[in-house]
Amino acid sequence: MKNKLVYKYIGKVLIAFAALMILPMIVCIINKENVIPFFIPSLISLSLGFIFNSFKIKNKMLYAKDGFIIVALSWIIISFIGALPLFINKDASFIDSLFEAVSGLTTTGATIFKDVECLGKGILFWRSFMHFIGGMGVLAFVMAVIPLANNDKSMHVLKAEMPGPSVSKLVPGIKKTLFYLYGIYIVLAIIECILLMIGGMSFFDSMLTALSTAGTGGFATLNSSVATYSLFNKYVVAIFMFLFGVNFNIYFLMIVMKDIKTALKSEELKVYILLYISAVLFILLNTYNMFSNMSEAFVNSAFHISSFMTSTGYSIGDVNIYPAACRIIILFLMLVSACSGSTCGGFKISRLMIVFKTIKRDLLKVFHPNSVHIIALEGKKVEEETVNATTTFLSLYIFFIILIMILVSFDGFSFEVVLNSVFTTFGNVGLAFEVGSFSIFSDFSTFVMSVGMLLGRLEIFPLIGLISSLRK
Amino acid sequence: MKNKLVYKYIGKVLIAFAALMILPMIVCIINKENVIPFFIPSLISLSLGFIFNSFKIKNKMLYAKDGFIIVALSWIIISFIGALPLFINKDASFIDSLFEAVSGLTTTGATIFKDVECLGKGILFWRSFMHFIGGMGVLAFVMAVIPLANNDKSMHVLKAEMPGPSVSKLVPGIKKTLFYLYGIYIVLAIIECILLMIGGMSFFDSMLTALSTAGTGGFATLNSSVATYSLFNKYVVAIFMFLFGVNFNIYFLMIVMKDIKTALKSEELKVYILLYISAVLFILLNTYNMFSNMSEAFVNSAFHISSFMTSTGYSIGDVNIYPAACRIIILFLMLVSACSGSTCGGFKISRLMIVFKTIKRDLLKVFHPNSVHIIALEGKKVEEETVNATTTFLSLYIFFIILIMILVSFDGFSFEVVLNSVFTTFGNVGLAFEVGSFSIFSDFSTFVMSVGMLLGRLEIFPLIGLISSLRK
Repeated sequence: MKNKLVYKYIGKVLIAFAALMILPMIVCIINKENVIPFFIPSLISLSLGFIFNSFKIKNKMLYAKDGFIIVALSWIIISFIGALPLFINKDASFIDSLFEAVSGLTTTGATIFKDVECLGKGILFWRSFMHFIGGMGVLAFVMAVIPLANNDKSMHVLKAEMPGPSVSKLVPGIKKTLFYLYGIYIVLAIIECILLMIGGMSFFDSMLTALSTAGTGGFATLNSSVATYSLFNKYVVAIFMFLFGVNFNIYFLMIVMKDIKTALKSEELKVYILLYISAVLFILLNTYNMFSNMSEAFVNSAFHISSFMTSTGYSIGDVNIYPAACRIIILFLMLVSACSGSTCGGFKISRLMIVFKTIKRDLLKVFHPNSVHIIALEGKKVEEETVNATTTFLSLYIFFIILIMILVSFDGFSFEVVLNSVFTTFGNVGLAFEVGSFSIFSDFSTFVMSVGMLLGRLEIFPLIGLISSLRK
Repeated sequence: MKNKLVYKYIGKVLIAFAALMILPMIVCIINKENVIPFFIPSLISLSLGFIFNSFKIKNKMLYAKDGFIIVALSWIIISFIGALPLFINKDASFIDSLFEAVSGLTTTGATIFKDVECLGKGILFWRSFMHFIGGMGVLAFVMAVIPLANNDKSMHVLKAEMPGPSVSKLVPGIKKTLFYLYGIYIVLAIIECILLMIGGMSFFDSMLTALSTAGTGGFATLNSSVATYSLFNKYVVAIFMFLFGVNFNIYFLMIVMKDIKTALKSEELKVYILLYISAVLFILLNTYNMFSNMSEAFVNSAFHISSFMTSTGYSIGDVNIYPAACRIIILFLMLVSACSGSTCGGFKISRLMIVFKTIKRDLLKVFHPNSVHIIALEGKKVEEETVNATTTFLSLYIFFIILIMILVSFDGFSFEVVLNSVFTTFGNVGLAFEVGSFSIFSDFSTFVMSVGMLLGRLEIFPLIGLISSLRK
C-alpha cells in the first residue's frame, strides 16, 4: 500500500465501529449481562482506529484502486473485531464466531447456532445490529467509492451496480447524500419496528427484526425464525423485505426530490416487481395443495420469495417441502437478488438486464451484421466498458461459486447440500434448502464460506484488488 | 427463407442420409432381421432430398445466416427420419424414438431404453452409426460453414470454436479438407476397432464401440456399458475417447503436414492434457479407498474422466459411488468438455480459455487503467468481436441450461436428478449421476431435453437463427 491515506480512512471506519459497539453494551447493561465481551473489542477497534488515523499524510489524492483497498480491508478487520464478542462470551469457537460475524456484516444471516434462543440479549442484539451496520456499509460504500469513479474509466465495474439516476448527481456533496440515504434507511426500519409492535410483538424483538430486515440480513431471535409471528407481522416483514430490495435512489427521488413520476419509470424497478409477482404466483401454483387453505399458501409464497429474492433469509415454515421446479426458480432468484443500490446481495437485476440486452444485441449482430445496436438502461446508453465489466463479473461470479463449491464439497455432504449452502452464502441470503445450521460444516468450509460471503457482498473486485496490491 | 439455395443444400444432406441408411439394412440382412424399418425412412429421406434438390435456383450466393439455417434444418429433419426405424420397429413411442435419434446424432448417448440387449442388431448398429454420422456432421459443419465466415463479421461466434490453426487455410478447397478430416476420423475408428478385436471382442461389438467412440457418443451394446470388457479394452476405449477429444487440426498438422512441432505447441491441447491429468489424479485421490486395488481405482478414474470430459458417456462401473467433490468437478468438466474442432459437445476448452483471458484482461484494466492488454490464443490476437461473442455464448449457455432445468423439473424428480439429466443432455455427454435410463421422464421433458441436445450440439446460434428467420 503506497498510499498512506488508505490507513487513515480505515482508521476512521474503526473508530466509528468502536462507537457503534456502545449500543450492544447498553443492551447488556439494561438486561444485566456482562459488558466485557463488547468492551474489549470496542477498545481494540478504538485503539487500532486511532493508530491508523494518526498517520501523517502528504498525498491527498485517493484513487479508485485505493477505494477498493479501503473497502476490502475495512470489511475484513471489522469482521474479525465483530467476531470477538461471540468468542469472548464463549458462544462459539473463533472460526465459528468469525463466520457468524461475517454472516452478520455481509447481511447474509446464515447461522452456526443450532439454538439461538439460549443466546444472551446482548449477543442477539449484536447479531441483528451487525446486519444493520453492514447494510449501512453497503450504502456508504456505494456513495464513497462511486464518486471516485467519475474520472476513472476503470470503475465501470461499479457503475454497473448503479445504472439508475445517481443520487450523488442530484444532491451536491457526499455527506448530504449519505445523510438522506441513512435517513431513509433508518426511518423505514423505525416504521417496520412500530408496525411489528402494533402486530403484538415486544419492543426488543420488533427492533431486532427491523434491524435485520433493513440490512436484508435474516438473523432471527427465535429458532423458528418468523414462523410463530402473527399473520399481520408476517406480512409486515414480507413487505419490508421487499421494500429494502428497492434501489434507494427510487426512495430518494420520491421522498426528497418529490419526483414520483421519474421514480416509477425505473426499468429495474419494473423488472423487480414483475419477477417478484411471477415468482410468487409460480410458487403458489406449485404448492397451494400442500397447505390447508389458500391464504396460508399465499403468505408462505409471498413471504419466502421476498426473503429469498432480497437475500434476507427469514422463513415462516419448512422450505424443504418445495418441489424441484420451485427450488430451481428460487436458486436462480437467490443468485440474481433484487435491485442495485439496495442492501441486497447477489448479482443484481440491473446487471442481469445488461446481460440480456447484450445477448440480444450480439444475436442481432450475428443475424443482421450491418445494423447498429445500442444497449440502454434507464434511458441512458450503457458504455461498452460497462457491458464488458458486467459480463466479466458474471464469469467471475460463476468461477468463484464453482471454486467454493469444490472446496466445501470435501466435507462429504451431498451435492445438493453443497450447492445450496454455497449459493446462499455467496448470494448473502442465509436461508437454504436442506441446510439448517451451518455448524455441520468443518472449520475449513466455514472459513471458505466466510470468504465467499465477503466476495459476494463486496462484489469480488475489491478483494482481488487487495490481493493484487499485497503482491507488490 | 428467401434463399432457395438453402433447400438445395438440405436436399443434398437428405440424399446422403438416405444412402447412409443402406448400411444398417445390410446389417439387418446379414442377421436375418426385418429391413423395412430402415427401408421406409431411407425412401422418405431420398424422396424429400430429390424434391428439395430439384429447386431451380437463380441466386448462387450463400450467406452466413443461410449456413445457420441449413445446419439447423438439416439436423432437425434427419433427427425425425433417424427416429423412424425405432418407431416402425415398435421399440419405443415416437417421442422416445426421437429422443434416442437426437441423442444418437448429437453424439450424446443418453438412452431411453432400460434394456439395450434385447434390441435387434440392426437397431443397435443404427444407434452407434448415428453417433458416427453425427460426429462426421460436426466436422462437416465446421468445414462447410466456417469458410463462409471469412468475409462476414457476424461469424465470430463460430471463429471462437476454431481459434487454432485453421485447416481450411492449410489445404485449398473444402472438399480436400473434408477428405483429410474424414480420413483421419475413419482411420482412427478402424484402429480402435482392430485393437478391441485383439482385446478379445467380437467384430460386431468392436465396430459398434469404435463407431460410438469416434463420435464421442456413448451408446453401448450391453446394459453394463463397457464394464464387462477386458482391462486391455477398457484402456483402449479410454485412450480413444481421449484422442477423439483432441482438435482434429492437430492430427492434420501431425499426419498430413508432418509438422509435429507446431501441433504440440497448441495452447488448447496443453490445457486439455493438464485438465485431464489433474482430474484423473483428483478422482483417484478421492476414490482409491473404494476399490480393492490401485490398478482398478486408476482405470476407473482414467476411464470415467475420459468419458465425461469428451462427452462420450461410456461407463465401467457405478459412478454414483463418487463423493460430492468428484461430482462437482465432473459436472464442471462435462459442461466445458474437450477441444474445439473435435467431435465433443460442451462449451469447449478454447472458449473457456478466452473467458479466463478476458477476466484477466478486464481485471488488469480495473487496477491498471492506462495499460494496454491484448487477448491472444494460439499465438494469434483474439478479436474483440470474438471475445464478445464468447462471453455472450456463455450467458446464453447458462440461460438455456436454467430454462431447460425449470421445464424438466415439473416431472417432480429431485433437484439433483434434474440438474444431472439436463447437464448431461445439454453437454451431449449421456452419462449422469443418479440417472440411468431416460425412460423415467415424461414425454414433455423427453422432448425438451431433445431440443436441449440439439441446442448444445449446434451451439445455440443456428437454432436461434432458424427461429428468427421463420418469424419473418
